Amino acid sequence: MAADQQRFARIALSFVAEPGDLALGALLRACSPAEAFAAICDGHPPQPAGKAGNGIRGLSRAIERWAARLDAVPTETMLAAWERVGIRILCPGDPEWPTQLDVLGDARPLVLWLRGSADLRFACLRSVSIVGARAATGYGRHVATEMAAALAERGWAVISGGAYGIDSCAHLGALGAAGITVAVLASGLSYGYPKGHHELFTAVAGQGVVVSEWPPDRAPTRPGFLVRNRVIAALSCGTVVVEAALRSGALSTARHARDLCRPLMAVPGPVTSETSEGCHEIIREWGAVCVTRAQDVIEHVSPVGEGLGARRRGPAYPRDSLDPASAAVLEAVPARAGGGPAVIAAAAGVDLDTAIRCLGALAAAGFVERCAQGWRVRKYA
Amino acid sequence: MAADQQRFARIALSFVAEPGDLALGALLRACSPAEAFAAICDGHPPQPAGKAGNGIRGLSRAIERWAARLDAVPTETMLAAWERVGIRILCPGDPEWPTQLDVLGDARPLVLWLRGSADLRFACLRSVSIVGARAATGYGRHVATEMAAALAERGWAVISGGAYGIDSCAHLGALGAAGITVAVLASGLSYGYPKGHHELFTAVAGQGVVVSEWPPDRAPTRPGFLVRNRVIAALSCGTVVVEAALRSGALSTARHARDLCRPLMAVPGPVTSETSEGCHEIIREWGAVCVTRAQDVIEHVSPVGEGLGARRRGPAYPRDSLDPASAAVLEAVPARAGGGPAVIAAAAGVDLDTAIRCLGALAAAGFVERCAQGWRVRKYA
Repeated sequence: MAADQQRFARIALSFVAEPGDLALGALLRACSPAEAFAAICDGHPPQPAGKAGNGIRGLSRAIERWAARLDAVPTETMLAAWERVGIRILCPGDPEWPTQLDVLGDARPLVLWLRGSADLRFACLRSVSIVGARAATGYGRHVATEMAAALAERGWAVISGGAYGIDSCAHLGALGAAGITVAVLASGLSYGYPKGHHELFTAVAGQGVVVSEWPPDRAPTRPGFLVRNRVIAALSCGTVVVEAALRSGALSTARHARDLCRPLMAVPGPVTSETSEGCHEIIREWGAVCVTRAQDVIEHVSPVGEGLGARRRGPAYPRDSLDPASAAVLEAVPARAGGGPAVIAAAAGVDLDTAIRCLGALAAAGFVERCAQGWRVRKYA
Repeated sequence: MAADQQRFARIALSFVAEPGDLALGALLRACSPAEAFAAICDGHPPQPAGKAGNGIRGLSRAIERWAARLDAVPTETMLAAWERVGIRILCPGDPEWPTQLDVLGDARPLVLWLRGSADLRFACLRSVSIVGARAATGYGRHVATEMAAALAERGWAVISGGAYGIDSCAHLGALGAAGITVAVLASGLSYGYPKGHHELFTAVAGQGVVVSEWPPDRAPTRPGFLVRNRVIAALSCGTVVVEAALRSGALSTARHARDLCRPLMAVPGPVTSETSEGCHEIIREWGAVCVTRAQDVIEHVSPVGEGLGARRRGPAYPRDSLDPASAAVLEAVPARAGGGPAVIAAAAGVDLDTAIRCLGALAAAGFVERCAQGWRVRKYA
């Protein structure tokens, strides 16, 4: 029962404090959720005075602002109602809790609200965040969709923020490849922002999971999006930015990934496109890795030596296999009229013995043939 | 007179050996050009036996292959004829010789053939090489032209290889901005490859300089292009690759720049374009810097602390200047109906005192206004 009380207190705290509230995070290092919630109900720091709250700056004022929201705390009955519509609550310590969020320290989510068939912890073990501009171009949409589909096909979950533009393409690409995708919203799950994505969220829940730190009915706020982005960065093994203007919110996710020392990647685009400026900026200034395909991403987020793909190669030509002397001799063989070995040697800048040796090897390989005047380049059929 | 003889011998050597011939470079470290040329005429290494040629691998065979081309050595009269058509010859030690080529060691050009009004040494002190695919797209042509023009406008010479595609756009961009441009050809100056660029080369010579390591009448060879590329990389303060497929010759210039520890840059493009694959590859794998505009290039090739431009910024909004508490309060102020400070404080997650203080400041700054219900967001005219 004590555990249940602590759990309820933690959920209650998620109604009075905004996600990422560092004062509450610090308080929860010093006392239990139930003690913290009791202190808020009492209107002053936990007793004995200052014991738990000692050293937390502005704790009294924080308690005042949390207390102003006590009306919002739901009853157990209301929580049960959400469960009946398929929403489950994760707390730290639950088997499904993604422990990689613990790197967020005092800014770690209090709880996570989930809807969907996938196991969040398991899905995120092999996952990549794909984020980017809402005002995406056809190019960015294409790249995000293809990359997400290719990652999903290779067993990587795709995490994004459920927004219009790149985010939706990332989710849809993974869904289309029958993969797992995770949408981390900046609104409550029932509110489901943006409203136009209700069908998308239903599809994501069917194959993956929709996640939020906010209580189900909460509308999004502007600062909330930036707060949410730390979760997208912390959940995944690495973050890829596909199209972002210089003011794009996707760069806040990128900054979190960088600050958490998680692999950060960006997809380049035309330098004439404002929507790619943020990607180029973080490649140049932040050391984000320039990725052009899913294989690049997998190589970068996999443990050293794993996930390696074949090297990129241009087309191969028969001439490629020639040693430098043979290549020079072949270059010097007249195309039509033909020429003798001495002429060819002088033109190629090699001595006569070398020229004769190379001509023999080139003839055997089908590059040149004898003719009345000596040697000429052989025409390919 | 001895100096004249050495000079003639060096020029003669440039007719019997291919540019970049390491054996000749090594021999010229051991003896003078006149001694080397005499040895080739004699058909065996300089006397006393082995003194100068000691330790140069394959020197006897090299002398044999150089001797095979002795017929090509011109008379003083022929050299004078080239001078009369405006071709001048540079040797190491001449005032116009670009000493940065000395980093090439044994592969340093023997001589340079020049046509044009600019001083090569002076032009290259502030220069950038712009190279790329012959099969350039409209995107690449646009970027190369704009970048070259912007560099030229800021007093940087643009070096390239005179080829179709990116090279020609680089030259034309600089010419269009009344700047200096240097074309380094892989054929002799009179041969002028590609033939379709004779007008371009005339224009380059009028405003800059056309350069070649090969005697004027020499046709290009396939390996010659790769040999030429080391000069493009070594002449300039840095190399920018604009569009290059994975097999592009531009990547050989990039490799030379990297191996010479000269700044190496690449312009990204759509990941869907094969013609940008080489650029992305060298950004990711070789550490080439991702540049999107001339300013990026100038920052990268300038001495530390010089050539810095303004930081790239997205648009600025009035809200940007708000402190976090004020931003949260503004976010919580109802747009139309208006609301009292207590409601706003709870919605914003701040205490009442903070809300009242922020509302006052926001009203003073014109963000919010009083109304019958309390405070509402002020409409901008």
